[in-house]
Parts: sequence; C-alpha cells; structure tokens
Amino acid sequence: MAGQKAAPLLKDELDIVIPTIRNLDFLEMWRPFFESYHLIIVQDGDPSKTIKVPEGFDYELYNRNDINRILGPKASCISFKDSACRCFGYMVSKKKYIYTIDDDCFVAKNPSGEDINALEQHIKNLLSPSTPHFFNTLYDPYRDGADFVRGYPFSLREGVPTAVSHGLWLNIPDYDAPTQLVKPRERNTRYVDAVLTIPKGTIFPMCGMNLAFNRDLIGPAMYFGLMGDGQPIGRYDDMWAGWCTKVICDHLNLGVKTGLPYIWHSKASNPFVNLKKEYKGIYWQEEIIPFFQSVTLPKECTTVQQCYIELAKLVKAKLSSVDPYFTKLADAMVTWIEAWDELNPSGDKLPNGAAK
Amino acid sequence: MAGQKAAPLLKDELDIVIPTIRNLDFLEMWRPFFESYHLIIVQDGDPSKTIKVPEGFDYELYNRNDINRILGPKASCISFKDSACRCFGYMVSKKKYIYTIDDDCFVAKNPSGEDINALEQHIKNLLSPSTPHFFNTLYDPYRDGADFVRGYPFSLREGVPTAVSHGLWLNIPDYDAPTQLVKPRERNTRYVDAVLTIPKGTIFPMCGMNLAFNRDLIGPAMYFGLMGDGQPIGRYDDMWAGWCTKVICDHLNLGVKTGLPYIWHSKASNPFVNLKKEYKGIYWQEEIIPFFQSVTLPKECTTVQQCYIELAKLVKAKLSSVDPYFTKLADAMVTWIEAWDELNPSGDKLPNGAAK
Repeated sequence: MAGQKAAPLLKDELDIVIPTIRNLDFLEMWRPFFESYHLIIVQDGDPSKTIKVPEGFDYELYNRNDINRILGPKASCISFKDSACRCFGYMVSKKKYIYTIDDDCFVAKNPSGEDINALEQHIKNLLSPSTPHFFNTLYDPYRDGADFVRGYPFSLREGVPTAVSHGLWLNIPDYDAPTQLVKPRERNTRYVDAVLTIPKGTIFPMCGMNLAFNRDLIGPAMYFGLMGDGQPIGRYDDMWAGWCTKVICDHLNLGVKTGLPYIWHSKASNPFVNLKKEYKGIYWQEEIIPFFQSVTLPKECTTVQQCYIELAKLVKAKLSSVDPYFTKLADAMVTWIEAWDELNPSGDKLPNGAAK
Repeated sequence: MAGQKAAPLLKDELDIVIPTIRNLDFLEMWRPFFESYHLIIVQDGDPSKTIKVPEGFDYELYNRNDINRILGPKASCISFKDSACRCFGYMVSKKKYIYTIDDDCFVAKNPSGEDINALEQHIKNLLSPSTPHFFNTLYDPYRDGADFVRGYPFSLREGVPTAVSHGLWLNIPDYDAPTQLVKPRERNTRYVDAVLTIPKGTIFPMCGMNLAFNRDLIGPAMYFGLMGDGQPIGRYDDMWAGWCTKVICDHLNLGVKTGLPYIWHSKASNPFVNLKKEYKGIYWQEEIIPFFQSVTLPKECTTVQQCYIELAKLVKAKLSSVDPYFTKLADAMVTWIEAWDELNPSGDKLPNGAAK
C-alpha cells in the first residue's frame, strides 16, 4: 500500500478528554505532544475541590455542577465519582476526533529508547483504513513495509473507515482484580510492534486508558454507562462502551484497530477496591458477552443513534433478567442519546461529517 | 497463567516434512535445530533426479514413483511437480506433530541477534491452548509475562486445544504475484513479538512455508489440493488447506495461532511464473472465500474426516459453478480421506491420540 507518511496532527480536529480527581501534573510529561491540542477535563470526584492544570495548556473543565447545569435532568445518564464521566467530554466536544487518556499514564519509550508520540500513532491508525472482513497475517497492511499477503481477496483491499484506535500499556497491564491479586509483580515489558484490525464478529475488551476514536463516525456509541456513586458496579465503563461500539461498527461497516501506541501505565490501582467494584461484573459478563456476541441489529438502523437505541431495547429485553441494573442502564442509554442529540443537533452536520 | 517454561522438544513425536526439487543444502543452517528429528522429504519434480541430503540427517524420501506405488490409483489426489505434494508426507507420518518448511527458508535472527529456534516456538504454540472465543488485547495470554486482560470472561480462560501454529517470514514476505510485481524491493524487516489466536469465524490466508500442526487433531484436513502439473492453478495449495482447516477447527472447537516464529525467507519466486499460476485463483478466491466464510458443518460431524467429506460435498455443490476444476477437486478431497484412512487405520489410535 501507499504506506503512512508523516501523520497530519489534526490540531484543530481533535480534543483530548481526561477524567480526573487530582492535579494534572502528569501533563508535564506530555507537554511536547499535547500542548497544542485543546483539552476537555472532566472532574470525576467532589466538585468543590479544585483541579490544578499546569500552565500553558488550553482547556475547559467540567465538574458535576457543570454537568447538571448543562444537561438538566438528563445528567442522570452521566456517572458520578467515577472516571466513566469522561464520556460527557465526548458529548460536549465539537471536534471530529477524540483521544482519551487516564491521568496515571505517562509517555512510554519504544525499544530504541525514544519517547512514543502516542497521539501521532492513534492518528495514523484512525486515518488509515481497517480490514475487518479478512485477516492479514502481516498485521496492518497499510503500515510502511507491510501489505496484504498472498491469498488476501483483492476486492477487500480498499478496507473500511477506521472508527476506533485502541492503544496498549507498558509496565502495569490492564488486569482485573483477581489477576492483580494473584500476580502482583507482573509487568508488561513486551513491546509488540503491531497494529491490527479486530475481525468483524469478534467482540473485544476495550480499555479506556489510551483510546482514540472518530467522533463523527462512532461518537454516540461511546457511552461509558452507569458506574461509581450509587451503582452496583465499577470498572466496566470502558468494557460496556467497547461491546456496544464493536457491535455497531460491525453493523455499519466500520473498523476497530488495536495494538500500537503504548503508553506507560505507572501504578496499579488497589486490587481490593477493584474487586469490590468488579465482582458483579465478573459474573455478569458471562451472560453479557454472549449477548453481545449474538446480537444483530436490523438493516433499517443506518446511523449510530438508531443502532444505539435499538441496542438499548435489546439490553432491556435480554439482560434485565440478569439484574434490574440493566433496566436502569438501558434507560440511561436512551437518555444519553437524547442528551447527545441535544448538544449535537443533527442540522450541524451532514452524514459525511462536513458542515452544512 | 503459568507461562511457558523451556518447551519439550518432542523428538519422538514430530516429523519435519520438506517438499523439494533440489539438493537440501539449506539443512546445513538448520542442523543444530533439526538434526535430532526425523525428516520426511517429498520430491516434487522429476523422480529420475536424485535429491542430495546432507550427511547426518535421519530421513525418508518419497518421489512420484513411491507415491504411485504406495497409493495406487488414489495417488491421483497428490499433486505432481508442485510443492503441494508435501501433504503426502503428512499422510505417511506416524507422529503426532508435523512441522513443514520450504527449502528456501533459513534461520532468522531475533532483534537481539540470536538465531531463532523456529521449531521450539511452534512446539510452544501447539502445546499451549488457543483462545478463539474472545479476543485478548495482550495477544497470547499463555506466554510468559502476559495474561488475560480485564474484561476477559473467566469461563473462557481454559482455552481450547491448539491444532495449528502458523509462523511468519522475515526478508521476503509472502506476497501474491501482482504485489511482487508492484513492490519488487519490499522486504519484511518488522519483527512483531506476538502470537495470537485467530478468532472463531475468521478465515485467514495460511502459508505453508513455515507451518506446524497437531496431526492427531487436524491432520486429515491438511490436504494441499490439486496443483501443478495438469492443473489450472498453483500457489493456492496452502490457501486451500488453510480455508478447510480453519472451518473445521472452528467446528471442532480447536485453535489456530499465528505470529512467531519467524524464518528468513531467502528469495522471492519469479513473479511472472507466479502470475501464470495464480491468475485464476485471484478471481476464483473472490467466490471461494465467501463460500468458506459462510459454510457451516452439521453437528453430526464430530471427526475431522467426517467434516472433510461434508466439506467436499459442499465444495462440489457450491463451487462447481465457478469452474469444473472444483468438481475434480471435491472428488480428490474424498480420495485423500480414503487414502489417509488406508494409511492410518482408525484402529491404531484412540480419539485422544494414545495407542490402543
């Protein structure tokens, strides 16, 4: 393929969304890469506390009071005291692309010892097509020095638009509480120099730590659910978004890539606290995942919103028997779409993302 | 997971199958890794020529006359003057595992400059489970330093038995003739330090250059079709085996891994010759691949042989309209199974691979 030249940096087309409860000192390390982008900071804790942002960054910050003021009763769909609230940032952004990162993630180094510009790699991933319809054994065929291997159908080599770029983590891997407890010393030191498309029909565990997406293509599916304060589970916000997103990407013929770029995940969260948040999810997911693996959306659903509303109906019909929580979640999914459409009136955009 | 310790070498349980038309000087480089294994050499050219095998290797060699003598009229299912004849070696082997390699493949080096013991990595891949039912973003969870990520269903962490280990190639990538013609200077220099399971339901382009499999689990599906002398196509032998194998692995709940190990592929084959061999395959595959993507085998098929015979029927029914060649191929698939069962009477083995 033509290969990926120096990536455009999309400075006017991408917002960085950061959920936080603390001072954003971690931004110092990202300064060379983030300073020219606009940041949307969503405070996930007590709104009376002040978040300190290092000098020189261009940002807007929303706390719970802001969210309540902007969304009114619809604010109920946004989680409180949980990083799941980050999805509010996706909703208020007006940009085409979103990059979201946790505030305990630092700049990683590649095997040559150079700092990895994670954002640049995400942009490369998002701007080159995906190949969900057939597997390429040399990974992303659009990277420099790679291509489609023998036996790859020529009719599929144009690929499909990429909606999601899922990046990975060196140092502390993204493990569940039981694995954290069993392997407290495990560190991820393996740098796998690959990007690959997750095949159509395959669901995956999407982590929100280091994630980019095309908001115009898939934004309304990136709802991080009801977690945290007053909810029976936590740490399933990104998983929920990932399951919904992948099913909708498959339906709308959009691609999801995973692999590069890596960030350096500095610190494992407390496994005991995590276990308390996760334990219901750990057995619920045994039913939720088969649900998402078998779900099919009707042909009539041609927009992300339509797909998402349909998915909400199916969640209510099929998962409410798992726990009443899913009835509440299904309602929140509908509220989320209503709030999204309120903040993003469809008149603003043509289907191809161009302004009217 | 427990991780992979020093791999057993399976010296009495694995045969190396090599198709060739020339002297096997390439074995000199492999001596430290191959010398204690038994080799099955299948001569794919003129049987009157003599293949010279370097001193010290333990081998048996079959030419066309041997194949005709051993299989009688059923020899018609084995390709002549084409490396597809290698599958005869799978049939005459009595071992549990097969590794097959092309004679233009040499020992590659890892990024630390050490020689890669490809066979050892294949054995690791085959002896650890696969995870076809859900995608793990940190690749093979059974490798040292890796595990299942957060959100991976616990019920699926036992994995399924691995039937196939598909290795890759540094230097000359496995490209089709059009890509070879367009990118004559492309070399694969990217060492991707990953092994991954190809998800259930996803077909892939399987290359026979550097391939290992569990003969007890999947052997009878590894038929390399009718290629070469008197046939309308070539260079689709491994692809055919890969499509059939993957569909049957999915049906029987077996895993297929791809990635490590790399070999060093020394020399691109002639793209003009390749184009002549491939051109029908290039348009046929546009119909063949959707056929394999949608094929389902009946529940009643519980052995590889039953699956394969069923697949032969479906090939005849659905692909004969593409070209009369597929009628002939479907018949050869049945002959192949008859020949396999003749050389491998079912009384020899219990289903778990133990001798009676």
